[in-house]
Amino acid sequence: MNSSWGISSRVARMRADVPLVQCITNTVVTQFTANVLLAAGASPAVVDTPEEAADFARVASGVLVNLGTPTAATYQAMREAVRGAQAPGTSGTPWVLDPVACGGAAARSSFAADIARHHPAAIRGNPSEIRALASLVCGTNATPTGVRGVDSTDAVESALSAATALAASTGAVVAVSGPRDLIVSVPRDDTATTSSTAAPRVSWLTSGSPMMQRVVGTGCSLGALTAAYLGAEVTARGTDGRNIDLHSAVVAAHAHVGAAGTAAADSARAPGSFAVAWLDHLWSLGPEDIESMVSLDEH
Amino acid sequence: MNSSWGISSRVARMRADVPLVQCITNTVVTQFTANVLLAAGASPAVVDTPEEAADFARVASGVLVNLGTPTAATYQAMREAVRGAQAPGTSGTPWVLDPVACGGAAARSSFAADIARHHPAAIRGNPSEIRALASLVCGTNATPTGVRGVDSTDAVESALSAATALAASTGAVVAVSGPRDLIVSVPRDDTATTSSTAAPRVSWLTSGSPMMQRVVGTGCSLGALTAAYLGAEVTARGTDGRNIDLHSAVVAAHAHVGAAGTAAADSARAPGSFAVAWLDHLWSLGPEDIESMVSLDEH
Amino acid sequence: MNSSWGISSRVARMRADVPLVQCITNTVVTQFTANVLLAAGASPAVVDTPEEAADFARVASGVLVNLGTPTAATYQAMREAVRGAQAPGTSGTPWVLDPVACGGAAARSSFAADIARHHPAAIRGNPSEIRALASLVCGTNATPTGVRGVDSTDAVESALSAATALAASTGAVVAVSGPRDLIVSVPRDDTATTSSTAAPRVSWLTSGSPMMQRVVGTGCSLGALTAAYLGAEVTARGTDGRNIDLHSAVVAAHAHVGAAGTAAADSARAPGSFAVAWLDHLWSLGPEDIESMVSLDEH
Repeated sequence: MNSSWGISSRVARMRADVPLVQCITNTVVTQFTANVLLAAGASPAVVDTPEEAADFARVASGVLVNLGTPTAATYQAMREAVRGAQAPGTSGTPWVLDPVACGGAAARSSFAADIARHHPAAIRGNPSEIRALASLVCGTNATPTGVRGVDSTDAVESALSAATALAASTGAVVAVSGPRDLIVSVPRDDTATTSSTAAPRVSWLTSGSPMMQRVVGTGCSLGALTAAYLGAEVTARGTDGRNIDLHSAVVAAHAHVGAAGTAAADSARAPGSFAVAWLDHLWSLGPEDIESMVSLDEH
Repeated sequence: MNSSWGISSRVARMRADVPLVQCITNTVVTQFTANVLLAAGASPAVVDTPEEAADFARVASGVLVNLGTPTAATYQAMREAVRGAQAPGTSGTPWVLDPVACGGAAARSSFAADIARHHPAAIRGNPSEIRALASLVCGTNATPTGVRGVDSTDAVESALSAATALAASTGAVVAVSGPRDLIVSVPRDDTATTSSTAAPRVSWLTSGSPMMQRVVGTGCSLGALTAAYLGAEVTARGTDGRNIDLHSAVVAAHAHVGAAGTAAADSARAPGSFAVAWLDHLWSLGPEDIESMVSLDEH
Repeated sequence: MNSSWGISSRVARMRADVPLVQCITNTVVTQFTANVLLAAGASPAVVDTPEEAADFARVASGVLVNLGTPTAATYQAMREAVRGAQAPGTSGTPWVLDPVACGGAAARSSFAADIARHHPAAIRGNPSEIRALASLVCGTNATPTGVRGVDSTDAVESALSAATALAASTGAVVAVSGPRDLIVSVPRDDTATTSSTAAPRVSWLTSGSPMMQRVVGTGCSLGALTAAYLGAEVTARGTDGRNIDLHSAVVAAHAHVGAAGTAAADSARAPGSFAVAWLDHLWSLGPEDIESMVSLDEH
């Protein structure tokens, strides 16, 4: 990664760009997700009906598809949004898949596997979700061993091969959330930065706070912020002579969220005040603060 | 405006009355809207199914119809609520239209224009929404020039003629939110306070904080609080020998919200803590505090 | 009640057990309910579609059925969840009915009365809701005298006979929320701790703060936490040689919520900061703190 276009540069550019993020997400976290996007510097738009989803996806900077509480209408809106995001004749809107509870209910898992084939720019989930989705999409054997409701009890490390297979199969940057976040992509010809197109790029990001697990929607809103960073990355295409680097955009989104978590845990020791402080730090941490507060290991 | 029945008197009366506000609003801000009503001193009720909306509107003090995330069922519930609010044989329940993203999706805009003809007591939106709605309802040429997602990039001042036309056409008090809020109405015979029935009454209210734009739902909940103030105004009909003055009720709602924003910005510099402080000040600011913290220019 | 298995022991056990609570609740409080469960120490899962509700209820620790904003799909999901919670061949998942606004709209009241016959472990509501439900289920004459929107103006004490009749008829522990909470059950053979199977067990719990009424969802999330405590109680069946005591589990849930309210009111004087402090204290109060901060009168 070019240090002059690392995390801090991407944070600054995302805030300057104010990407418009279309959120099709679950009913539990809608408000919080919108507030996270606003605090981080993006602009949320919850346009999630089948009638409106496709048209809006054409003009949005990025799209989030989160499977948290899917109804028949939501499934249809998601399909429409993905169709709109990839309408012929457009340069395309990057979209993010958050396969919440994939591996649980059969219809939800089947939907996740199907829509994952429609070229998401990124897929973000917990270890169990990524293992389950990889198993469905790529036939890997890494089925989740630990799922409890919407929580994973698998370690992030256990999802590395599944995430790599999923990245190779779908072309998406695959992010696995946990105490250390894992971001994996498999470069293709047009974005390859190495001579081998098959060697995965693997980033490990250490940041955040265990308290984030005690506030609903921190993970779901990370998916939305990932769409914001991807949108800003795509918008900047060509403006500075660089190729776009979706992988680094996903890393930056995770760093932004994680650094705010670390900062919030300094002042807040319980979930109510932690959530408030987290939103505050998403807003107030500067780009350099964010880069300096996370530990990134790439290979 | 009679100074003895200005902003502070209306705040005090609204709190004494605890108006019951039926909210049919978008999924992003439902919880926040309810909390805003509770903090301000009103009583929220989210009754938004087609089956229950009409009956409840008959007994509510005020009704909010917000088009933020409309489904087919929500559209139907909105029609039912408006029908219930204006049931024959009743004195009627004032209802507020918030035409979110009017001018965007065609079906939504068409719905907004249609329901705006059913005698809303007030219409509240951002400059682009009001311009778009006026264009649809009255054929004004003031179509919005700046829309991005659900945000307006038009100035409030640019919506004056559209708001006036919309007020004349619908009979509603029309409020346009921005750094300065604009409230316009066109007096009719039964409420006219001047000899000319055609001269619009125009109020400019300066209050609030730019931080309000970084918390989702501040505008939407202003629509709900407007319904609360209208409800209290109508309930008081005749109890003190005054005519009701819906325009001043809308001004008072905006002053309440704006003063709390100003006060919150004194102590909170980031969106998470700002939202908390805003709710706190909606509750704790006294009627005189509110009146003194805003700047009102009427002509 | 055995003092060695009183409130503090149940709080500690619930936190150790981290019960998985399936929430089918209203759209206003979904996020807050999830945050309350997380802060208190449980694990929320909003699985509320007809397609997924039954399967999930089989594996959840407890289920909440809250009638706040019922759509046709939600009604169906509730029926499915109750069916799944009581699937033949399983030991059963305890479920809680919160009959929001029962006594208002006819369809909602009728649904509440019908589903109340499907063996809820607990029923929680305000005085008017409990009186209305008892009237529908048992034919008591205690119809509510004071209802305004979703609020009750009846006193808790006025619901004692209705709650007792409802407990006897449904087998549920019936909880009535107010300044003093009332928890009533009518012991049956398998759980009877007295020689008379007909004598009701009545607990009065004094705790909390009036400020809880100014934050939306404190009551609704108490219903969810009741399901958490019931789930922990059932899970512990037999592990320590005691019979399960659902009544005491319901008392413990109310004590946890109330003590946090008392503690929050010490530091927060307005609704925004009160809600934050309440979540914080749900998390940080120790089991002994909770037991010592409430006043329990049982007979």
